[in-house]
Amino acid sequence: MSSSYFAEIKPIRYEGPESNNPLAFRWYDKDRIVLGKRMEEHLRFAVCYWHSFVWTGLDPFGGETFLRPWFTGGSPMELAVRKAEAAFDFLSRLGVPYYCFHDRDVAPEGATPRESLSNFRHMVEHLAAHQQRTGVKLLWGTANLFSHRRYMAGAATNPDPEVFAMAATQVKAAIDATLQLGGENYVLWGGREGYETLLNTDLRQELDQLGRFLSLVVDYKHRIGFTGTILLEPKPREPTKHQYDFDVATVYGFLKRYGLEKEVKVNIEANHATLSGHSFEHELALAQALGIFGSLDMNRGDPQLGWDTDQFPNNLPETAIALYSVLQGGGFTTGGLNFDAKVRRQSIDPTDLFHGHVGAMDLCARALLVAARMIEDDRLAKAVRERYAGWRTSFGRDALEGRLSLEALSERVLSRNEDVTPVSGRQEALENLVNRYI
Amino acid sequence: MSSSYFAEIKPIRYEGPESNNPLAFRWYDKDRIVLGKRMEEHLRFAVCYWHSFVWTGLDPFGGETFLRPWFTGGSPMELAVRKAEAAFDFLSRLGVPYYCFHDRDVAPEGATPRESLSNFRHMVEHLAAHQQRTGVKLLWGTANLFSHRRYMAGAATNPDPEVFAMAATQVKAAIDATLQLGGENYVLWGGREGYETLLNTDLRQELDQLGRFLSLVVDYKHRIGFTGTILLEPKPREPTKHQYDFDVATVYGFLKRYGLEKEVKVNIEANHATLSGHSFEHELALAQALGIFGSLDMNRGDPQLGWDTDQFPNNLPETAIALYSVLQGGGFTTGGLNFDAKVRRQSIDPTDLFHGHVGAMDLCARALLVAARMIEDDRLAKAVRERYAGWRTSFGRDALEGRLSLEALSERVLSRNEDVTPVSGRQEALENLVNRYI
Amino acid sequence: MSSSYFAEIKPIRYEGPESNNPLAFRWYDKDRIVLGKRMEEHLRFAVCYWHSFVWTGLDPFGGETFLRPWFTGGSPMELAVRKAEAAFDFLSRLGVPYYCFHDRDVAPEGATPRESLSNFRHMVEHLAAHQQRTGVKLLWGTANLFSHRRYMAGAATNPDPEVFAMAATQVKAAIDATLQLGGENYVLWGGREGYETLLNTDLRQELDQLGRFLSLVVDYKHRIGFTGTILLEPKPREPTKHQYDFDVATVYGFLKRYGLEKEVKVNIEANHATLSGHSFEHELALAQALGIFGSLDMNRGDPQLGWDTDQFPNNLPETAIALYSVLQGGGFTTGGLNFDAKVRRQSIDPTDLFHGHVGAMDLCARALLVAARMIEDDRLAKAVRERYAGWRTSFGRDALEGRLSLEALSERVLSRNEDVTPVSGRQEALENLVNRYI
Amino acid sequence: MSSSYFAEIKPIRYEGPESNNPLAFRWYDKDRIVLGKRMEEHLRFAVCYWHSFVWTGLDPFGGETFLRPWFTGGSPMELAVRKAEAAFDFLSRLGVPYYCFHDRDVAPEGATPRESLSNFRHMVEHLAAHQQRTGVKLLWGTANLFSHRRYMAGAATNPDPEVFAMAATQVKAAIDATLQLGGENYVLWGGREGYETLLNTDLRQELDQLGRFLSLVVDYKHRIGFTGTILLEPKPREPTKHQYDFDVATVYGFLKRYGLEKEVKVNIEANHATLSGHSFEHELALAQALGIFGSLDMNRGDPQLGWDTDQFPNNLPETAIALYSVLQGGGFTTGGLNFDAKVRRQSIDPTDLFHGHVGAMDLCARALLVAARMIEDDRLAKAVRERYAGWRTSFGRDALEGRLSLEALSERVLSRNEDVTPVSGRQEALENLVNRYI
Repeated sequence: MSSSYFAEIKPIRYEGPESNNPLAFRWYDKDRIVLGKRMEEHLRFAVCYWHSFVWTGLDPFGGETFLRPWFTGGSPMELAVRKAEAAFDFLSRLGVPYYCFHDRDVAPEGATPRESLSNFRHMVEHLAAHQQRTGVKLLWGTANLFSHRRYMAGAATNPDPEVFAMAATQVKAAIDATLQLGGENYVLWGGREGYETLLNTDLRQELDQLGRFLSLVVDYKHRIGFTGTILLEPKPREPTKHQYDFDVATVYGFLKRYGLEKEVKVNIEANHATLSGHSFEHELALAQALGIFGSLDMNRGDPQLGWDTDQFPNNLPETAIALYSVLQGGGFTTGGLNFDAKVRRQSIDPTDLFHGHVGAMDLCARALLVAARMIEDDRLAKAVRERYAGWRTSFGRDALEGRLSLEALSERVLSRNEDVTPVSGRQEALENLVNRYI
Repeated sequence: MSSSYFAEIKPIRYEGPESNNPLAFRWYDKDRIVLGKRMEEHLRFAVCYWHSFVWTGLDPFGGETFLRPWFTGGSPMELAVRKAEAAFDFLSRLGVPYYCFHDRDVAPEGATPRESLSNFRHMVEHLAAHQQRTGVKLLWGTANLFSHRRYMAGAATNPDPEVFAMAATQVKAAIDATLQLGGENYVLWGGREGYETLLNTDLRQELDQLGRFLSLVVDYKHRIGFTGTILLEPKPREPTKHQYDFDVATVYGFLKRYGLEKEVKVNIEANHATLSGHSFEHELALAQALGIFGSLDMNRGDPQLGWDTDQFPNNLPETAIALYSVLQGGGFTTGGLNFDAKVRRQSIDPTDLFHGHVGAMDLCARALLVAARMIEDDRLAKAVRERYAGWRTSFGRDALEGRLSLEALSERVLSRNEDVTPVSGRQEALENLVNRYI
Repeated sequence: MSSSYFAEIKPIRYEGPESNNPLAFRWYDKDRIVLGKRMEEHLRFAVCYWHSFVWTGLDPFGGETFLRPWFTGGSPMELAVRKAEAAFDFLSRLGVPYYCFHDRDVAPEGATPRESLSNFRHMVEHLAAHQQRTGVKLLWGTANLFSHRRYMAGAATNPDPEVFAMAATQVKAAIDATLQLGGENYVLWGGREGYETLLNTDLRQELDQLGRFLSLVVDYKHRIGFTGTILLEPKPREPTKHQYDFDVATVYGFLKRYGLEKEVKVNIEANHATLSGHSFEHELALAQALGIFGSLDMNRGDPQLGWDTDQFPNNLPETAIALYSVLQGGGFTTGGLNFDAKVRRQSIDPTDLFHGHVGAMDLCARALLVAARMIEDDRLAKAVRERYAGWRTSFGRDALEGRLSLEALSERVLSRNEDVTPVSGRQEALENLVNRYI
Repeated sequence: MSSSYFAEIKPIRYEGPESNNPLAFRWYDKDRIVLGKRMEEHLRFAVCYWHSFVWTGLDPFGGETFLRPWFTGGSPMELAVRKAEAAFDFLSRLGVPYYCFHDRDVAPEGATPRESLSNFRHMVEHLAAHQQRTGVKLLWGTANLFSHRRYMAGAATNPDPEVFAMAATQVKAAIDATLQLGGENYVLWGGREGYETLLNTDLRQELDQLGRFLSLVVDYKHRIGFTGTILLEPKPREPTKHQYDFDVATVYGFLKRYGLEKEVKVNIEANHATLSGHSFEHELALAQALGIFGSLDMNRGDPQLGWDTDQFPNNLPETAIALYSVLQGGGFTTGGLNFDAKVRRQSIDPTDLFHGHVGAMDLCARALLVAARMIEDDRLAKAVRERYAGWRTSFGRDALEGRLSLEALSERVLSRNEDVTPVSGRQEALENLVNRYI
């Protein structure tokens, strides 16, 4: 019986910074009020099904290491039921408000499309019962359109329209399930929506396919009354050589191209951000500037490694800066903070799953407190406002709003006929200021 | 007298593949007809002023190595005149049809805005005379908005609107000069249009400034009757930590945001492409798919180095694939193939400047012949067409054009109730096919 | 019956450059004499067992794609027998002289160490029979010390000495098998000999364990009369965060530390070279300069991807430069050119395995011809010799050989009291010269 | 008069964590006792001359931004004197115990070797007087063998032995000066000791030259009675494509090759570590494991940038881990913590130089307190010791020390005939433990 798997772990409690209990929260005090809201409402933590309950520890050079009791010893559906029991046992003991899943995480692929659908619907009933029993909610659902060999050349962007239809079938069912389970968002990550070589690829055709697919999803959402947010999750590459949802800027251009920029937002993952050559805070700031910020997949990559390591976040200053950016943009609406993170494949004890999540939740809670101090203190934001003060003069406004042509601007400069005096960017002083809040 | 600097070099001639003369063309036979056009018309080669005539050999760890005769021994304007003489002497001996320049490459910054403008206008007269004398034409002009300390925090994206006006002044004059000199395009590369740290940056404000600036440029172009193309040149970073024109996809989203996607195209640089995490051919193919392909800055980076090395292209298969992509898109219109490349700082002889350009032109000419064979043979393109054949069936067209909802697609799959059989992507076979054309 | 799997493929023949048959050699004419040796003797091609016969197409985001007939439908040992039949059928049709394998590629892990050993010995008998029947030879054998969960924290470098003993058991058996099968080298690749985090790692202890292990291997080799070469294969990371055999320079220091630099050489892989921040030719040139060049794992990585893609080589100039380096060092002795390369996971047809290997062999053959021209022509080597001519004067020899102290050198400079005139490095001219041989 | 340049800055004082003064230390209380030593003795901070007093703000795309008063308005020697006054004024106000310099930082190159030497000796007298007056000491001296064009193809590794002699001349004088000024180490950083292309390079010859040069330096040191440490500073590339002192492991192999591993240690720079594909703590831990740890160049790179950004450290957890590694190895002996860091080129105010250094010193002091808690608490180190406990059993010792052959180990495993049970690596738990000390 899977629930015994975590039997040795007592429910995780807040015990304060002085606690020496490695499986207690020192900072995550969910009811503590920060900037007028409960910590739990700010952070909206979610645990993902795939890394914690589905992944076996396998990597490209080695096999299973975890030997979870729900991996063997029953039919696929029996194991799926056992896995769900273990998952909700974990979620409850951890005290996390949300979870996330792919369709294929929770129910096995069947021999036919109908059997797959039936398996999935059956397991969704189980999930619904677990949610009701435990109070754990669904942050978002999604469909796995990348693991099965039929999707090896893409799902929506497959050269074969029959595969597009297969993908549509899965996504419809996954949105239905998300609606049924009260999910607050629906995510699309295009793991195979990209190419391995341009030699066999019609880029424009594939982009049009992807645009069509997303439009169908948006239409369907409205038709069935799903009021959650549709989220695209950018990633530059891996598994493919190039993925179409490369980064936030690329997704924005794609949404504009297909007229979807008001319908779809982004789920930004820290490790995907760094793989795309950006900092996490860049992707956050850009999504907010472009009006498409949705939700976060919180994790960390390894700056020396060129693939998605999906480690738990553990750096306080970096996490604080990220949450400062979230708070500056007004915080989450339907989105939340999903730990798309996995314990290392050598962390084979059930306890390790708790260490990973407890440490990460605690880090984020502590970072939230730091970020809140930055917001309340306002010195960082003030420094930025003052730096751009010239753009709020009448000349600045005229220039920005297009009331001065290139000739008019040139005329102004040549009339004054003197150079501009640059001012310090004060980067070191601002970096030091950040460290005062740590 | 600068013209004697290259006196030892005889004009470069086509001598055929068997020639043993290192300063002859073995493949670039400018009047040879390829796919119905002269080689020179296909390739539209340009030499850039900055790397060959302005750069001193300086790098971040060392000083000048080149000791060109026009670097010292006169007033700034006398040296500018001497440099122009040397440049056109070089261009003529090389036999290249085009050149490109920044305003500050050809004329020195003055003590005041008016003096800078006067210096520039004076030198533009010199350039006009040299063009007339030699027949060399201007592929594109641009303004240097990144070297002077006033632009250290950006030109159009500077926190100070007076710097925005200074930039406008330079750009207006540079467009005027480009028009006067018969330039076929005008380029904007935003070397400082980015940020060093988000801590002192208002991203949304800066994007709006950049959008406004580009709109002013487009308006001005139309007002003065400049019929060339306005080109943005993407680069992800360097000198800044992050540049707003990160890559082709980012530029596309930016143009869409400010309604400029029909007015502005991209000048794609090979080394910038690879620095942004893409292959050169990706950036080419994407620009064509999005309808914003304009011109090329041909060079190569070093895959082990994280900065812009601007080396001359020298890899035949890679260059052939790039030109195949250009040809597939219909070739250049106003754009061309500018060698944004510099000899290494140890290549201190005048002869080295010729070796760099002769080798690169010859390589591109040979690559053009390879690419033309790919086009004529059509096997590569045919393989792609056939791979997507399903999308040209009535089902495929209905799916792509939105006549089938998510429910309809799902219904189709569940009715058939069978899986799809994937087919080989044939990457190795196609890669081998490419090697048959080399 | 597995042998029918490749039944549609006729043995691959040399048909010359004009052949339009994609499954014929255009350049690899094994008996053609190049620089006094047969092509086959120069190139010493090998096919690896793991990528072509063991890998299922699985990647971190998706499952099996290949569905080879020897993957299912029998006991593990029956499938191993069937796989060996298919493998030698492939090798024979391809006409390749060598193959390479890991112990676990050819025989399944058993329930106990003795059963594993028994399985392996049984399959080695099968391999011996296949070798005799087909004439295919063993370039090198190796042991898989990275896939099983017992090795998750290292084999020789495991914190548990019992795992060290398990690794020793496998390696002993694999060397025995290599000797029995007439293998010409024995390779150690330390996929898990590294760390995931320094927080749980004693670096010095692990290095000493690895040094001990390698010493035991060398001792054993001599004791049993194995006259082949022991080879270490450098790789910087993946699967671990950091591997101890990072690159050629690191391996050299390691060998020197444990007194093994005369006993062990390196097997250099192209893709590992680039992952470590070096060019392939750097690793080749360095291994030759240090006297530890052994063998090659020929493949290519993708410059945009941060993991081992193990693609077939397909770039002629790059491959020619690599083989020029090999030829300059005197060519292979016991080493050879093993294709540690795999068809893409979308290349699911049996034919694709042939396309991958035929294209790669042909490319290498063509590159060998280019490299031979470079050697014969001698202009590249002569340019290098002349550049260092000063070191062959009596002053140069005195300086290099230590007959002039720092004071003596300083005295010489101050006496002459004049600066040195630098000369051009001529990089562009030399790069152009290389392109003349393509 | 340069000393007035920093006149507005009062000497920096320790004011405690609650201070709101951005130009006070909150953590660096130099006389505070930590683990039995004064903070100042632990940290041994140094300021580097080049970034703070020599660099003009120039980068590859733009010119000077800083306009320091000692950059213009006098003869080169007058400016050198003024610069030294400003430097020591800064060092005194900052309250830092050490500085570091290159020969060419403090005195201008002359028209001849003798004049260069005379300039340098003259300025060394000035430095000596400033040291005496202020009490600031020299952590290390070095020679600039990379900026002048004569070194464009290397100094010790130049193809021309006359350049080798020029380099020897400079190094002799720089060691003499270091001895005279009481410097505690002498550093060699080989900025041009590498190559741009293998096409013109004899790798083995150049390594032998470099080995000879370093041997001459060691001989000279002993001959003149310099008792400081000779340090090599690894860097993988930049300015060259490849530098011979790539990383710690490469330097170790090089030292072993030329028999210098007991004479020379390494000066590890954080930003160089990350450019070479390693973490900073890896390079530290490896140098300690190999017995060649010497000194630190403390700074930080930018994980998104592929060049040396030399920013001030500002991440507390990362810095704490680095200092924990230093403390575990016993702390510094002759080495210290040199800030090889520069303010951003937009940080143009004199105050910014203070912000950079005050923030960095304070960060390191705070990190030292964290690291000291890790040492005192011992839980991290204990976890590592326990993980390797098996190697301290008699079997473990026999295995490690070579008393068990490959056969004996195999026999043991086959006799027991059972598998090993792996144990968790506990990475997440250890990472959480680290965060408890922050």
